Amino acid sequence: MAVKTGKEYLERLKATKPVVYQYGQKVEDITTNATCVPGIGQVSLAYGLAQDPDPSVCDLFCTKSDLLPGEKVSRYNYPMQTADDCAKRVAQTRHFAQRTIGCSVRCMGLDMFHSLWHFTWEIDQKYGTPYHGRFKEYIKWVQKEDLAVSGAIMDPKGDRMQPFPSQQKNPNAFLRVVEERKDGIVVRGAKLHQSGALYVDEHLVMPCTATKEGDEAYAVSFAVPRGAKGMKYVMASTVGEARRLFDRERGITWDHIGPYHPVATMIFEDVLIPWERVFQYRELEYSAPIVNLMVDYHRMVSACCKSGNFDVCAGVAANLADAIGVSKAPHIKAKILDIIRMAESGYAGIIGAIYQGHQRPSGLWAPNTLLIAATWYNIKMCVSQVLAHLTDIAGGLIVTQPSELDYKHPDLHEQLEYYLQGHPDVPTEKRLRMLRLAENLISGPLQALVMHAAGPPEVNLGAIKRDADINKLKQFANALAGTND
Amino acid sequence: MAVKTGKEYLERLKATKPVVYQYGQKVEDITTNATCVPGIGQVSLAYGLAQDPDPSVCDLFCTKSDLLPGEKVSRYNYPMQTADDCAKRVAQTRHFAQRTIGCSVRCMGLDMFHSLWHFTWEIDQKYGTPYHGRFKEYIKWVQKEDLAVSGAIMDPKGDRMQPFPSQQKNPNAFLRVVEERKDGIVVRGAKLHQSGALYVDEHLVMPCTATKEGDEAYAVSFAVPRGAKGMKYVMASTVGEARRLFDRERGITWDHIGPYHPVATMIFEDVLIPWERVFQYRELEYSAPIVNLMVDYHRMVSACCKSGNFDVCAGVAANLADAIGVSKAPHIKAKILDIIRMAESGYAGIIGAIYQGHQRPSGLWAPNTLLIAATWYNIKMCVSQVLAHLTDIAGGLIVTQPSELDYKHPDLHEQLEYYLQGHPDVPTEKRLRMLRLAENLISGPLQALVMHAAGPPEVNLGAIKRDADINKLKQFANALAGTND
Amino acid sequence: MAVKTGKEYLERLKATKPVVYQYGQKVEDITTNATCVPGIGQVSLAYGLAQDPDPSVCDLFCTKSDLLPGEKVSRYNYPMQTADDCAKRVAQTRHFAQRTIGCSVRCMGLDMFHSLWHFTWEIDQKYGTPYHGRFKEYIKWVQKEDLAVSGAIMDPKGDRMQPFPSQQKNPNAFLRVVEERKDGIVVRGAKLHQSGALYVDEHLVMPCTATKEGDEAYAVSFAVPRGAKGMKYVMASTVGEARRLFDRERGITWDHIGPYHPVATMIFEDVLIPWERVFQYRELEYSAPIVNLMVDYHRMVSACCKSGNFDVCAGVAANLADAIGVSKAPHIKAKILDIIRMAESGYAGIIGAIYQGHQRPSGLWAPNTLLIAATWYNIKMCVSQVLAHLTDIAGGLIVTQPSELDYKHPDLHEQLEYYLQGHPDVPTEKRLRMLRLAENLISGPLQALVMHAAGPPEVNLGAIKRDADINKLKQFANALAGTND
Amino acid sequence: MAVKTGKEYLERLKATKPVVYQYGQKVEDITTNATCVPGIGQVSLAYGLAQDPDPSVCDLFCTKSDLLPGEKVSRYNYPMQTADDCAKRVAQTRHFAQRTIGCSVRCMGLDMFHSLWHFTWEIDQKYGTPYHGRFKEYIKWVQKEDLAVSGAIMDPKGDRMQPFPSQQKNPNAFLRVVEERKDGIVVRGAKLHQSGALYVDEHLVMPCTATKEGDEAYAVSFAVPRGAKGMKYVMASTVGEARRLFDRERGITWDHIGPYHPVATMIFEDVLIPWERVFQYRELEYSAPIVNLMVDYHRMVSACCKSGNFDVCAGVAANLADAIGVSKAPHIKAKILDIIRMAESGYAGIIGAIYQGHQRPSGLWAPNTLLIAATWYNIKMCVSQVLAHLTDIAGGLIVTQPSELDYKHPDLHEQLEYYLQGHPDVPTEKRLRMLRLAENLISGPLQALVMHAAGPPEVNLGAIKRDADINKLKQFANALAGTND
Repeated sequence: MAVKTGKEYLERLKATKPVVYQYGQKVEDITTNATCVPGIGQVSLAYGLAQDPDPSVCDLFCTKSDLLPGEKVSRYNYPMQTADDCAKRVAQTRHFAQRTIGCSVRCMGLDMFHSLWHFTWEIDQKYGTPYHGRFKEYIKWVQKEDLAVSGAIMDPKGDRMQPFPSQQKNPNAFLRVVEERKDGIVVRGAKLHQSGALYVDEHLVMPCTATKEGDEAYAVSFAVPRGAKGMKYVMASTVGEARRLFDRERGITWDHIGPYHPVATMIFEDVLIPWERVFQYRELEYSAPIVNLMVDYHRMVSACCKSGNFDVCAGVAANLADAIGVSKAPHIKAKILDIIRMAESGYAGIIGAIYQGHQRPSGLWAPNTLLIAATWYNIKMCVSQVLAHLTDIAGGLIVTQPSELDYKHPDLHEQLEYYLQGHPDVPTEKRLRMLRLAENLISGPLQALVMHAAGPPEVNLGAIKRDADINKLKQFANALAGTND
Repeated sequence: MAVKTGKEYLERLKATKPVVYQYGQKVEDITTNATCVPGIGQVSLAYGLAQDPDPSVCDLFCTKSDLLPGEKVSRYNYPMQTADDCAKRVAQTRHFAQRTIGCSVRCMGLDMFHSLWHFTWEIDQKYGTPYHGRFKEYIKWVQKEDLAVSGAIMDPKGDRMQPFPSQQKNPNAFLRVVEERKDGIVVRGAKLHQSGALYVDEHLVMPCTATKEGDEAYAVSFAVPRGAKGMKYVMASTVGEARRLFDRERGITWDHIGPYHPVATMIFEDVLIPWERVFQYRELEYSAPIVNLMVDYHRMVSACCKSGNFDVCAGVAANLADAIGVSKAPHIKAKILDIIRMAESGYAGIIGAIYQGHQRPSGLWAPNTLLIAATWYNIKMCVSQVLAHLTDIAGGLIVTQPSELDYKHPDLHEQLEYYLQGHPDVPTEKRLRMLRLAENLISGPLQALVMHAAGPPEVNLGAIKRDADINKLKQFANALAGTND
Repeated sequence: MAVKTGKEYLERLKATKPVVYQYGQKVEDITTNATCVPGIGQVSLAYGLAQDPDPSVCDLFCTKSDLLPGEKVSRYNYPMQTADDCAKRVAQTRHFAQRTIGCSVRCMGLDMFHSLWHFTWEIDQKYGTPYHGRFKEYIKWVQKEDLAVSGAIMDPKGDRMQPFPSQQKNPNAFLRVVEERKDGIVVRGAKLHQSGALYVDEHLVMPCTATKEGDEAYAVSFAVPRGAKGMKYVMASTVGEARRLFDRERGITWDHIGPYHPVATMIFEDVLIPWERVFQYRELEYSAPIVNLMVDYHRMVSACCKSGNFDVCAGVAANLADAIGVSKAPHIKAKILDIIRMAESGYAGIIGAIYQGHQRPSGLWAPNTLLIAATWYNIKMCVSQVLAHLTDIAGGLIVTQPSELDYKHPDLHEQLEYYLQGHPDVPTEKRLRMLRLAENLISGPLQALVMHAAGPPEVNLGAIKRDADINKLKQFANALAGTND
Repeated sequence: MAVKTGKEYLERLKATKPVVYQYGQKVEDITTNATCVPGIGQVSLAYGLAQDPDPSVCDLFCTKSDLLPGEKVSRYNYPMQTADDCAKRVAQTRHFAQRTIGCSVRCMGLDMFHSLWHFTWEIDQKYGTPYHGRFKEYIKWVQKEDLAVSGAIMDPKGDRMQPFPSQQKNPNAFLRVVEERKDGIVVRGAKLHQSGALYVDEHLVMPCTATKEGDEAYAVSFAVPRGAKGMKYVMASTVGEARRLFDRERGITWDHIGPYHPVATMIFEDVLIPWERVFQYRELEYSAPIVNLMVDYHRMVSACCKSGNFDVCAGVAANLADAIGVSKAPHIKAKILDIIRMAESGYAGIIGAIYQGHQRPSGLWAPNTLLIAATWYNIKMCVSQVLAHLTDIAGGLIVTQPSELDYKHPDLHEQLEYYLQGHPDVPTEKRLRMLRLAENLISGPLQALVMHAAGPPEVNLGAIKRDADINKLKQFANALAGTND
């Protein structure tokens, strides 16, 4: 069967030993690294849900595929061909976020599948290149083996005012081909913001900006297995990472952290990419379209993931309100409903965009990108409000509560039990655990994730600008003002 | 054919003479009344679009109906049975708003069709009453004759802290049955906020609040022809009405007012309603559901109408930016894109709600009301921002420009022509007309309409509360915090 | 005594006959023109308050002056020399706005006094010109006669992307000197947005943009009496104007309009300005500073005027909440408090800016312009929220109520009396009058006034940019990050 | 001299050994505890600034005192008697926040000085009690010794719907007197949210709610030395604490954490308070006024502290924009100016409130509490926007950057140096340090601090309600609508 288990996934992980650094030390085995363990668990959970006995769950996580007739494949590896495919895909995303406030790591890869599916087809049409068939074979193999594929886009970018890679003073600001060989191309550079890249099977890599004459070396898309020769990964060190490691050492168990995935800076030191894994090279005019189309799909999926996150925030807020007996206070109710409004209206907008879409010649379903960008912008603007409401309802204890270890300490337990009690019907421990979860949500990367996923707000405005037909809107006004030209 | 022309509509209008007051005087013929003429024109336009040669337009305005096999009926009279029906319905609404910044007057009536279609069926199931068949006959007749039907809901309501009609000191705070006769019921009371009621064929009337024991006389839904014996209409007198009349007297032609419809206070002085037009009476527990379901549909439709209005606002803003040469200024572009974002994300959310809906046993399509309420709340909160952006871009001249008559006056024309010129490529007259349109949008009832259509924001929050499953959200949080009960 | 009465003011008005157009007709006598009467009444009221028996009021409206030892002069003609002078000045402004939701028309003139006081002194220092003494004599005369002086700044400006007057295609885009004569200069051009200019005694005129070589003719500041030979005034024709005239013709008395002042486009057709009234001419580098300093003072005063307007909005909202019995509903209370918050925090910020100021060498008090710009920006962003709250609380009747004439009509009065009643303790007429006031506030120019007074939001951001010391802020960050250069 | 040095402060600290727990362990010496060291450093810095050679700094940190004629005392121990005192006090607060993004820990104590100064005087007037003289002696001693005094207000509060302490099921929800003895009272209970309480000299304690008959034991205010017999402190364990300890163990030096102070839960296990340190006991009607007045002063001071924090945020944002070359992008400039606007308008409002104040009979200066509450509410609403802007400008690297140790690791340094470079003119290390500072600001407790300092937003709205004169506002509206009663 093409759908694999979490155990099979884990075995594959153990079979390779990528070069990984964290806090100035080499990590020998990421499958036992305290930072990676929770994230690996999430990816495994996503494998498991594809075999969930509840059909309403299972159906979100796997589907039939034309490429492998008669087999179920993971929805994470399935290019969407209908509006209903898309609707299931975003429902899957929200469901997973509700259960984990986390992520399956495989979304970026799938979004890239769509973009490369479409543009390998287009490039072939124009240049007679063999990319599309090659890419289809790749996808077929990924589906068959049920591989986890991450997506790598973001180059360091250096001076942002120099949009084209070859104009940068620093040649390393963008990943590039440094050698062409018979057996493939050799690439050098870095990709940033690689969430969970440490424990996938494959990476898909593409440009992150437009390219023009002189940028040939930078116009390249390809696939590469995790830990290929010449690759190094450096783990990020956020405040959440530090706590996760710190807590683990002391036996603290209520960390309930995201658990957001450790993010890596991924370095390519002259890595050989065989030709059969190259899906674009030197077709300059396609770099921007490839990344833009990927981002269009990523907005769609990210937005619904955030609805799931906001759902959890609303649930935490509601529990915390119960914990001090204020659930019926009008201003508290209003704030919880406001979080729900933001979750639901965002989700609604994406579903709407899906059903206002159309089918592309390459067979994929194309949701309405203007509606997606408009909706996603709203969500980006909402996240600070969601967190502000949660902070407000949680109360000051969110940043002043003693640690789990103090709470359990015999010198302190009895007193903390009654001093930290809120409403008598809610166990103190429940309140403290919930506060800890709230703290993790607020101090964690949620705001940054929402703000920067699929590009910062300004980039999103750019998409609205690209897709809106301002001339048509002017004509409506002219017709009404009697000023038709 | 069941689809009638604007001319046929107008003939029907002329055939009755309702009792109408405006500015302290009886209006003898509303079809020539300066306040009513533009609104009547809009209703006529809507009739015309059902026969538009462009199928993409015509298709939004008429459809097939089960009730009249083989005939096309107006979409304004057609209860929606599929998600696609709903999607076409809201596209129709947006299209009409883009062309008119106005309204066809028939939406409230159609929203009521849905509510009464559903609840006459339910009431009959429970009580064995004959309402559903009766109502179906009514709709069939309305479709056949292509009548324009308005909806009348809002009672005066008196003291808002007394939710039940019989608790009010003032017995007239809600419309009620004052007599039961063999041939029907006699009703007394008033319905407020009756946009365009002066020039429809029929009114549908329903309760606007919950009723309980003691409120029997108030639990009543029925249809009544415009201008029935005992009815009086008093036209509203907004600032826009005053200008429209004033301008007309002086020959000003650039008024470009909405043209929003004159709103009437509709008074029932002991009006007889024959039994075959009564669709609920004394079934107390259904008053709230009837009005709530109507409002659910009305939110869906109103929201998309507002997208159309915002489209026009964006177009006006873009034209005005051109007129003074600032279209490329970053802050101006950002504000125009912001209006577009609000228009599109609202529309997207409603489409999403439609496709996340289900079919009711009574055959109607039920969009997801939580998603609708969440989206509609956003739009209510947006309108002041849209108008603020438009005010900002329009500039001070929006409230200081001379009148059209001064502009055309020989003593002044030459000077005003060059003093009021902005960018040399845009004719001064175009700028002035566009400013006038902007002024009408800003000073007009748009904000009040959006704020109060389908109830004020707090009522909308109530709908979110009704539909959200807060317990489920709490469980997500509990699962993550390890505090499952 | 240097403080004059409203009657004396009116006599002065009647003594001149400016050339005025409105709705395509010449206005023979503005003192009886329905549009002007309420505004003239406001100016008269301001005269009266300077002699109010209540010292807490009178003290806000007049003060001692160094220029006229031993005499009281109007505060509207008094350049401020201390923080306490400024604090009284803004208290005066708020007080007047609370009583009238209107304006005394004299603020712009006084703001210009400050700017010209300061820069005539500076220009004289640099060029040995005689402007400062000349200007002081002018002010002394204005104080002595207690004249009402308006300020005229805003040129048509044409294409906004051409910042310098001489670069415009249209030479009339900015007012300019067309001839120098022995007895003075001859000016041609227009000034827009001249609120209340029709019924002041004098106008002060200054450039509205920077000037550089080639713009000599445009770098000019001067005073001119209202209705000087060669001047024409064209009244604006807002929706409010139309209603005011319309209502007056029909005997409607509840118009409670602002009453905002009729705004004029003021045209100078070769008007001779004697040299003793010229306060800047050809000193190119001073045009921008003169207008900017004027605007700094105008922000200070306008902001507090808006607090007074918001006070009225809060009061109207509170009365309307009473009228339907919802004063205690939490969401209603929250919205009214929110309006109060916006009024008070704006006022507080301006007072703070005043007391963080310093004295200029020319003797004037200089409030802190950064604090003013920051506060004023907040207020600009608040006004749409104030009006949205008011619209929300007022309810739909704000745009649907019948006219006063219908309410008083014998056929309708009894019914409208009980149908339009809200809470039984509040007379129906009180409710209707208050709704009319609310309608005027919402549909009137308040939003445009706040948005554009002292320049649109972007101009205000420019002032923040001018005054903020971003390098100092960076150094704080560097010190904390250990990255001092 | 009454102004002491940081060294003297530190010696006092070392002389006592409070019972402190952290992460389940007793802390033997807080002066060497990694969590406490940075905070102790901040308190020491504040001592040092009182002797700063720069008079513009020194003047903010010390002043003359009536109580100790001829001596300079710390401004942290000086009750304010004039508007200028208050203006210097808030300037001190902003200055300290700009230098530390932190806090001197002594503000709450000083705010309590004001409240108890005033109410001991009032209680004595009413009951002939000896509190005021006793409290004056206490302040005199505190000034003389230049002690650091913290303020303890917040009880656990249990079920928030039970406002009176004696109504709580849990008797420990509020701190109370459990015994009266000849030599004093014995108190039991806890105070939460005790920032920096671990390293002050004294704590002032007061009720945090209203008390009525039956609550006598809860109506108590007193002073107690840090670490008095029977007291226990349990340190909070935020994500920032964990990182600070974690980093310290690994030799990471770029933590630049706030450094916010470790917050303690402070437990009183039957602590004896001698009568000469009791300042209120059983005067039930004064509990609410005491806490409310304290909060009024605390709002004033906190607000300006936040301006200092926002200044740093603007500086960090500006540095980060430089680091990737986007300082001139319009949307980036707009966001930085927006942070500045929020910092300055908040500060302006507080200064305004100060100068609109009056002197109390007890000699203290009373700023205008309505203006304070209005301004402080704005700031509370701003903080999420400040952090959102900072997150936006910082970019994704804020949550994905490798650790300092990786950056310095020989295997990685060269590559990270060029891959993490932004604009070539800004050293990579500077960018990384600044990102780390930004991360600490965003993930730290800033939002919670602003939201909950001086009570959550709803409590602040309550203060606006208390102080606003809604009837006066209604009268303005009535006068304009002609509806004076």
